[in-house]
Amino acid sequence: MSDRNHEDTTRLTIPGGYGCAIDLTRGQYIGVRDIEGGQCGDFWAIDAEDFDHFLSPSHTWVHIGRVQPQVGDDLVTNRREPILKIVSDDVGWHDMLVPACDRQRYERYYGVTGHGNCHDNFLEVMRPRGWEAKHVPQPFNLFMNTLVEPDGTLLIRNPISKAGDNIVMIAKMHLVVVVSACPMDLNPVGGLGITDLELLVGNSEEKMFEVLKV
Amino acid sequence: MSDRNHEDTTRLTIPGGYGCAIDLTRGQYIGVRDIEGGQCGDFWAIDAEDFDHFLSPSHTWVHIGRVQPQVGDDLVTNRREPILKIVSDDVGWHDMLVPACDRQRYERYYGVTGHGNCHDNFLEVMRPRGWEAKHVPQPFNLFMNTLVEPDGTLLIRNPISKAGDNIVMIAKMHLVVVVSACPMDLNPVGGLGITDLELLVGNSEEKMFEVLKV
Repeated sequence: MSDRNHEDTTRLTIPGGYGCAIDLTRGQYIGVRDIEGGQCGDFWAIDAEDFDHFLSPSHTWVHIGRVQPQVGDDLVTNRREPILKIVSDDVGWHDMLVPACDRQRYERYYGVTGHGNCHDNFLEVMRPRGWEAKHVPQPFNLFMNTLVEPDGTLLIRNPISKAGDNIVMIAKMHLVVVVSACPMDLNPVGGLGITDLELLVGNSEEKMFEVLKV
Repeated sequence: MSDRNHEDTTRLTIPGGYGCAIDLTRGQYIGVRDIEGGQCGDFWAIDAEDFDHFLSPSHTWVHIGRVQPQVGDDLVTNRREPILKIVSDDVGWHDMLVPACDRQRYERYYGVTGHGNCHDNFLEVMRPRGWEAKHVPQPFNLFMNTLVEPDGTLLIRNPISKAGDNIVMIAKMHLVVVVSACPMDLNPVGGLGITDLELLVGNSEEKMFEVLKV
C-alpha cells in the first residue's frame, strides 16, 4: 500500500482484493475513489473507543427512511448515533444490503476454496487493533449496484461507477475506518475486474476536493 | 406466560410487549401465531452450541435472492448455513430489514424514556443462557409490513396479518429461538395495538397443523 501526502491530505492506495484500516478523528474527512471504475469497496466505520459500537446499515435505513443513503444523510450506529455524514457522492447509488463476501460465499456458492474475501480482509487489519473474535459487522458497500424490486427480489448488477468517481464523508466521532477493495470476481459485483481503490483522509473539505480533482 | 401441552406440541403465549426464549432440537417445528392480528413479532434463531452463529437476514437475502423469504426457503446464518426452513406461511410478507426497537429508538425518535423494547426483551431472556454483552443480531420481524420502493425508500406500513395467521418453520440445527411481541405503539408497526403472540413447538408437522387449526 503506497502512502503519499498532499498538504494535509493523506492518500492511500488499497490494492484490488485487499483491505486497510485507518484512524479518523472527529471532523476529519474521508474520501474513497474508484480509480478505474466498477470496483466495489466494502466500507466499515467503528467507534475507536468502543468496538461494540459501529456503523449499522439497518439502523441507518430507519434513520433516513431509505436503504440508499444520499448526500447530506447521517449514517448511524447500532446505537443510533450519527457516525459519518455524506458530504459528496459522484455515484449516488451504493449498497447497504449485501454482507461481506467470506470464505463460505466462495466455497458454498462457487466451489472455490482459498479465495481472498472482504470478511477476512476486515479481520486481518482489525486484529492488530484488538478486534479478536467479534462478529464482522454488515458493511456499506461503496460503488456496488444492487436493487430491490417491489416483490422483494434482490438484484446484484454490474457496477455503474466510472473511473475517478468518489464519495466523501465527514467523521462524527473518533473512528477506525476499514475499506476492502472487494476481490469478488465470480459475479457482477466484480464488473470490469478487481482494481485498486484510493483512500483519502484530510482535515479540510476544500483541500480534499482539490486533491480529488487532480 | 402460560404453558400448555397438546399431545407433543408445546404452546406458549407471549404477552404483548414481552419476549421469550425456547429451545428447539434439529427437526422440530416452530410456529408463531398472530392471535388477534396486526402484531409484529421480532424473531431470532441462535445456534444453541455457539452464540456467535445465528440467523442473519442479510446472508439470507443473498442465499434466496430476495429480501422477503417465501415458503420452502432456507433461512441461513452469518456463516451461510441453513438454520431454519419456512414450511408454511399464512401471510407471505414479513420484514427482515428493520433492526429491533431499542431504548434509543423511543428516546431519540419519539422522546419517550423507559419504553419496553425488543432489544432489551432479547437480552432479558438470553442473559440467563449466557449471552452477556454480545451485540443483538438483526431480527426477522414476523407480521411486520415494510416495502422498499425502486428509489430505495423504506416504507413501514400497517401490518396485514389477520387474527390467527401463522408461520411455521423447521429447525435445521439445535437452536435457541427468541420471540418478542413488539411493544412499538408509536408508529404503524403497532397497527391495531400491542397484543399477544402464540408460540408452538412440536415434533410433527401434522400435529402442529392440527393444533393451529383449533
